[in-house]
Amino acid sequence: MRSAALPVFALSTCLLFSGAFTENDSTPEELIRKTLHDQEVAWNNGDIPGFMKGYVREETLRFSSGGNIQRGWESALNRYLKSYSTREKMGTLKFSDLEILVLNEEYAEVFGKFYLTRDKSVGDASGLFTLLMKKQGAEWLVWHDHTSSADE
Amino acid sequence: MRSAALPVFALSTCLLFSGAFTENDSTPEELIRKTLHDQEVAWNNGDIPGFMKGYVREETLRFSSGGNIQRGWESALNRYLKSYSTREKMGTLKFSDLEILVLNEEYAEVFGKFYLTRDKSVGDASGLFTLLMKKQGAEWLVWHDHTSSADE
Repeated sequence: MRSAALPVFALSTCLLFSGAFTENDSTPEELIRKTLHDQEVAWNNGDIPGFMKGYVREETLRFSSGGNIQRGWESALNRYLKSYSTREKMGTLKFSDLEILVLNEEYAEVFGKFYLTRDKSVGDASGLFTLLMKKQGAEWLVWHDHTSSADE
Repeated sequence: MRSAALPVFALSTCLLFSGAFTENDSTPEELIRKTLHDQEVAWNNGDIPGFMKGYVREETLRFSSGGNIQRGWESALNRYLKSYSTREKMGTLKFSDLEILVLNEEYAEVFGKFYLTRDKSVGDASGLFTLLMKKQGAEWLVWHDHTSSADE
């Protein structure tokens, strides 16, 4: 039993270190890009709750757009569910031209452009966003989001 | 001479320490509020170059509004001079509901509302802004500005 158990132990130890190495090996910028990429993927799968995983799940979350402010994760989720109630309204999301500034171990500012490619009946949308991202455990999540539309 | 010189020395030393004390005594939040207040005062005096003193005078300055990005201090100045070419268009500026988050010794995030009270012929304007402010010597100045209009 002892000799059979050893390789299992060795394998799990190896996986443990491998996981730890991968995590430590990612720079804040890589982790931030991963969060935003995962948001695009979720959105483009029509999965708004999945998209919302990129946001800090706290009452202090702040989402601003135009002249409106939403506070709290649930409130932001409900706004997205209401504003993008159909797959046509969601369209295909693409973030681009990301400017990532890691301010310290806890915070980063991210600036970029968003594009929503949609059916003619709804029309495309695009604009700019400034995010304050916060490190939460091993992830970097959006805490403050200020979005402005190119149609403004 | 010696007895007459002493009080002068004592006075200048006192002023020196007094000045140093006042500067050190101001918190980053107080210095940030002062920058924004000075901007309001300059704007309301019709002084756009004075208003621009609140911005970092660097090519890396970023001013975003709607879907537009201006880069560099001169570019932002020219945008303001063009968009607010008359005293009527400038109106009276008021910042409110400031949420100041000092991130470290160098950076702070500031979120707030702006109101421009203007003549009926031009119409009022209002909206939200997110600033990344940067410590420059003894001052805190706006480095990144993302503004969105309530009319969006």
